[in-house]
Amino acid sequence: MGRAADRGPGRIGDWLVKIATLENGTRDGQLLILSEDGTTGRKAAAGSLIAALDGTGFDATGEAEAFDAAQCASPLPRAVQFLDASAYVNHVELVRKARKAEMPERFWTDPLMYQGASYFNGPTAPILGDPAWGIDFEAEIAVITGDVSMGASPEEAAGAIRFVMLLNDISLRNLIPDELSKGFGFVQSKPVNSCAPLAVTPEALPGWDGRKLNGIFRIDLNGAPFGRVEAGQDMTFDFGQLIAHAAKTRHLPAGTVIGSGTVSNKDADGGPGRPVADGGRGYACIAEQRMIETIQDGAPKTPFLQPGDRVEIWMEDENGQSIFGRIDQTVQAVGD
Amino acid sequence: MGRAADRGPGRIGDWLVKIATLENGTRDGQLLILSEDGTTGRKAAAGSLIAALDGTGFDATGEAEAFDAAQCASPLPRAVQFLDASAYVNHVELVRKARKAEMPERFWTDPLMYQGASYFNGPTAPILGDPAWGIDFEAEIAVITGDVSMGASPEEAAGAIRFVMLLNDISLRNLIPDELSKGFGFVQSKPVNSCAPLAVTPEALPGWDGRKLNGIFRIDLNGAPFGRVEAGQDMTFDFGQLIAHAAKTRHLPAGTVIGSGTVSNKDADGGPGRPVADGGRGYACIAEQRMIETIQDGAPKTPFLQPGDRVEIWMEDENGQSIFGRIDQTVQAVGD
Repeated sequence: MGRAADRGPGRIGDWLVKIATLENGTRDGQLLILSEDGTTGRKAAAGSLIAALDGTGFDATGEAEAFDAAQCASPLPRAVQFLDASAYVNHVELVRKARKAEMPERFWTDPLMYQGASYFNGPTAPILGDPAWGIDFEAEIAVITGDVSMGASPEEAAGAIRFVMLLNDISLRNLIPDELSKGFGFVQSKPVNSCAPLAVTPEALPGWDGRKLNGIFRIDLNGAPFGRVEAGQDMTFDFGQLIAHAAKTRHLPAGTVIGSGTVSNKDADGGPGRPVADGGRGYACIAEQRMIETIQDGAPKTPFLQPGDRVEIWMEDENGQSIFGRIDQTVQAVGD
Repeated sequence: MGRAADRGPGRIGDWLVKIATLENGTRDGQLLILSEDGTTGRKAAAGSLIAALDGTGFDATGEAEAFDAAQCASPLPRAVQFLDASAYVNHVELVRKARKAEMPERFWTDPLMYQGASYFNGPTAPILGDPAWGIDFEAEIAVITGDVSMGASPEEAAGAIRFVMLLNDISLRNLIPDELSKGFGFVQSKPVNSCAPLAVTPEALPGWDGRKLNGIFRIDLNGAPFGRVEAGQDMTFDFGQLIAHAAKTRHLPAGTVIGSGTVSNKDADGGPGRPVADGGRGYACIAEQRMIETIQDGAPKTPFLQPGDRVEIWMEDENGQSIFGRIDQTVQAVGD
């Protein structure tokens, strides 16, 4: 994929660069191959991204049209599966610390991963939920893979990464303890997520080091900076390792999405970090800010999301241009 | 779906009856609408089952062809998601009893459910694995839903069931304790499953009571009866309840598969059951027979699956005809 055979708009040299999926009334949407500057796009002959990944390929058809991110679904509205990790182990350590529980030493060597909902809402879809559920966001990096053989090595797995995207993993914090205590992982407590409108090939990302993405991940809550975390730091397991973990006992078909889990940095001094307002990098989810508050003050003070709250998630290149477009979601109470 | 508007072969009166999916080199396969007696089929104009469920419908096209189950993939090779429950709580109670652990009382009222791999191998695909993983089968009933709204009631959820099928949930027993102890549920320990070739509409199943399937579920291991369990008994949560549980915090798109979990009966006297060879109903997975052995003799004696072992799973109607066709899988060590 992406080699000279399918040159066209949206390539740098031999490479396909950015894609998006337009809402068109179908469940898989219309794949758009974007121009290098992201201002125009041409429709993919394959129809949808999943059809392109299935083997139909990325040939573009028709005239270039002005690109409007507001018309976008998530890049892959129906993935084949979504396996979400918790690769920033700092986050897990903080969760445990806040509830005064030991974190098993093996969490530094054996990735945490669960299977989540593999269909994604669009970048600006409302976050629908009951505020009593404790609605939270989690800013994550995610990758879309091609086919991965069962038993693939981390090297082979890293080579199967086709696109990188940003994902908001909605988490219902007040449902999690009860659900996890049953031992079967998340179902009700991890509903449908959204992705930023653009998916970008690893080769076109200057911050991509072959296994993970470097760069400042920006999260605003109600228009104020909430997180300016560094995606490439403190990622204990890279995407090669995560995909290989998922593929240990099964093949992963093209169209599999692997999530990093919420990005979480230690502070420069190795401490648990500080809010942006206090000069720190802030956090990629409310839960983490609450943990810090609990560790420092004995109790959390930042509430989870309430109806009307707005979450924005994006990354910028060195020129301040948005790389993936923007997740921009507002909370809406169920039934409203 | 299934009403007079799309009459044709494979209907009883107004109803669509049975479908299958032929392997055709694509990832979703070719949907086949079967005749009432299941001997012939016509191709669906929609192409695949997922396209038909998406809204394209079940119109047949072309001439009737002889139906050959050996050419079949699973009915829905790529589902939108697979949420697998553990609805026969007797099974969970036995697992706990074998390891001398209490089962929380709420397991009788709050369903256990995890998200599993949503792509399925064909009915006769080899079971690929390392025997050291402790490879086991689990005979389950599964349903394919249409669209289900977030917050649907069990009644509404039951009305969204489009097809019923049989599923072999492969479980890697020796990987489960370690994986579940991490708290995020199953990923590596529940690889890719297979389904029996036919999916049948609830309306066409005499044993369907609106919420669950009654009938003897037959499991043979290496040609000898291993289970003759009663699918309609001891199912603590029916499919309406299971689907509603899954839909509490999210909509379920058409093409969602919900599994019952391994069928598990108490004995007539309320006891934990006996092997078929001892006059009992036997078991729908090896683990359960091993638990009984552990409870009775202090240690299991039946080994998990070894390379060359053959598992057959099917159900019969009152005339001894197979209702869903047969899952017939042989174990193959990885690398062989």
